[in-house]
Amino acid sequence: MSDVYIALLHYPVYNKRREIIAAALTTIDMHDLARLARTYGLKGFFIVTPLDDQIKLAEKMLQHWRQGWGSDYNKARVEALNLVGLTGELSEAKEKIKERSGSYPLVAATSAADGPNRQSFSEMGPYLRGERPLLITFGTAWGLTDEVLADSDLILEPIKGPTNYNHLSIRSAAGIILDRLFGDR
Amino acid sequence: MSDVYIALLHYPVYNKRREIIAAALTTIDMHDLARLARTYGLKGFFIVTPLDDQIKLAEKMLQHWRQGWGSDYNKARVEALNLVGLTGELSEAKEKIKERSGSYPLVAATSAADGPNRQSFSEMGPYLRGERPLLITFGTAWGLTDEVLADSDLILEPIKGPTNYNHLSIRSAAGIILDRLFGDR
Repeated sequence: MSDVYIALLHYPVYNKRREIIAAALTTIDMHDLARLARTYGLKGFFIVTPLDDQIKLAEKMLQHWRQGWGSDYNKARVEALNLVGLTGELSEAKEKIKERSGSYPLVAATSAADGPNRQSFSEMGPYLRGERPLLITFGTAWGLTDEVLADSDLILEPIKGPTNYNHLSIRSAAGIILDRLFGDR
Repeated sequence: MSDVYIALLHYPVYNKRREIIAAALTTIDMHDLARLARTYGLKGFFIVTPLDDQIKLAEKMLQHWRQGWGSDYNKARVEALNLVGLTGELSEAKEKIKERSGSYPLVAATSAADGPNRQSFSEMGPYLRGERPLLITFGTAWGLTDEVLADSDLILEPIKGPTNYNHLSIRSAAGIILDRLFGDR
């Protein structure tokens, strides 16, 4: 399998009125996605936010679990959170992946919306066994902006159940996406 | 498809030291699992807790989103939370399912642990097309007790990635389980 990374972008994302915003960190998302990354054998999980105070908050949380009281209380949590890296922008995450895995990643964005050129999960095989690392990006709030999607190499198809409802939490959607790609079924 | 329901049990579940406890409600779990239930076309989502003050808390939250300010702010959330029912014990949930779907459900428990008689996802087909409704149960905290598992008709196999790490959040695990059973892949 290629080296696979995920990134959770807090900017640029849409709010409910489709304005471009920097969303606040949600510590539960950091935990849940780190646990998913660890479960599915990913190489790293980047939390992307341009806000300095939010980076400080994330550092404090990570320190609590990695070295503080939490590290003794819950060893499984340490293992997951050790995969987390904090970056101000997506380009920094790409640079770090290049340093670690030897080349810039192929970027696969996720979106809850239908649109042109969506990549089906069933045809992802070649990218999962390719030479380039793979970076899967997720947006907080109302999702990644059109510009982020357009700048990506691929856009994964939205998760569908048997209904037309497409309002999953990032915690559930990220799990389903990683399981569709890497689950042992 | 059979009528399918899910239940999130806050009692009896294990804590970290494998003591049997009643866990506190987490409102984000209520939201995330309701959104999953709505996405996958389920008939209902039961929140099971024996604690009166916790039931009151849940009622207050539901009222905010269903009839209060939240109902206007986020219509998608209303649709999801309309599936939620509050019950003091699992047996009450089964009674309500019988009233609604005509017979007592087949109960499929979930567990992050390996064990005897685990039911594979790939062989769940007959139960999903059976005459009886299906109730899938999830445990909060460190999971459903052995007694709850033994009282169930089936125990679903644990979610596995390519690693041996089995510490997913209920928000992610429930999504993966429902997608494996009902996702349009």
